[in-house]
Amino acid sequence: MDERIRYMTIALEEAKSAAAEDEVPVGAVIVKDGEVIARAHNRKEASDCAVRHAEIEAIESAAAKLGNWWLEDCEVYVTLEPCAMCTGALINSRIGKLYFGAEDPKAGCCGSLYNLPADVRFNHRFPVEGGIMRSECAALLSEYFKGKRLKR
Amino acid sequence: MDERIRYMTIALEEAKSAAAEDEVPVGAVIVKDGEVIARAHNRKEASDCAVRHAEIEAIESAAAKLGNWWLEDCEVYVTLEPCAMCTGALINSRIGKLYFGAEDPKAGCCGSLYNLPADVRFNHRFPVEGGIMRSECAALLSEYFKGKRLKR
Repeated sequence: MDERIRYMTIALEEAKSAAAEDEVPVGAVIVKDGEVIARAHNRKEASDCAVRHAEIEAIESAAAKLGNWWLEDCEVYVTLEPCAMCTGALINSRIGKLYFGAEDPKAGCCGSLYNLPADVRFNHRFPVEGGIMRSECAALLSEYFKGKRLKR
Repeated sequence: MDERIRYMTIALEEAKSAAAEDEVPVGAVIVKDGEVIARAHNRKEASDCAVRHAEIEAIESAAAKLGNWWLEDCEVYVTLEPCAMCTGALINSRIGKLYFGAEDPKAGCCGSLYNLPADVRFNHRFPVEGGIMRSECAALLSEYFKGKRLKR
């Protein structure tokens, strides 16, 4: 199996865990040398903190596991295009590469509103590949928001 | 005393604590209704995690104190212009206003490289006032980096 599908499937499982906890369903996985070293999902509501996006949780977990904040040998898989905060966190963490699922036209900073990972003025840049399992990732989000609207 | 000076002085004390711990000296303070509800400094090296900038620490602490991730009634004072990650975190947290000390021409996203807080496409915008105690904030950073270079 295409390893991008394998890792994005794990990120999707994380996103589903978020949905089950009534969080916006976004999941993230960090891979080093073919091994999943961190997997996490959005915990904003549970933690009452807007910082707790899936990517931040995954970065912290990966850095703790490696005992090192420098993640240049790592790849991250996220179900949704990262926002400004998470893209900035990936730059600061010197991530090696980003794969994401669905584009985020309202907040995405890896190609949609901005393309921060390609900005040569920052001290780190990284390649980005979007659209991995796009329809599955997007469907999970639309179902979640549809459910929210129905509840209201 | 101008309250901006009062709060930035506290942020500077935090930045000095960071320097004493051999961290890049940046401090942040969050104020609500005239009360300092959070103060923090950069802990990147101690935590081995690139996410642990002063602003992130302060946002988490303020949200925990309020039991709410929504910080629209709060103001944040930071000694250095926030990077992409921290500016994004302030947008996500719906911060009311940002005051910062020194500009960051290499990574600043609140006027230098980008002006993310003013982007009408995001779901939150906030006013920014830079240059509060600029010279003191900048001097602390230059002294720190000068010391680092001498050690090498």
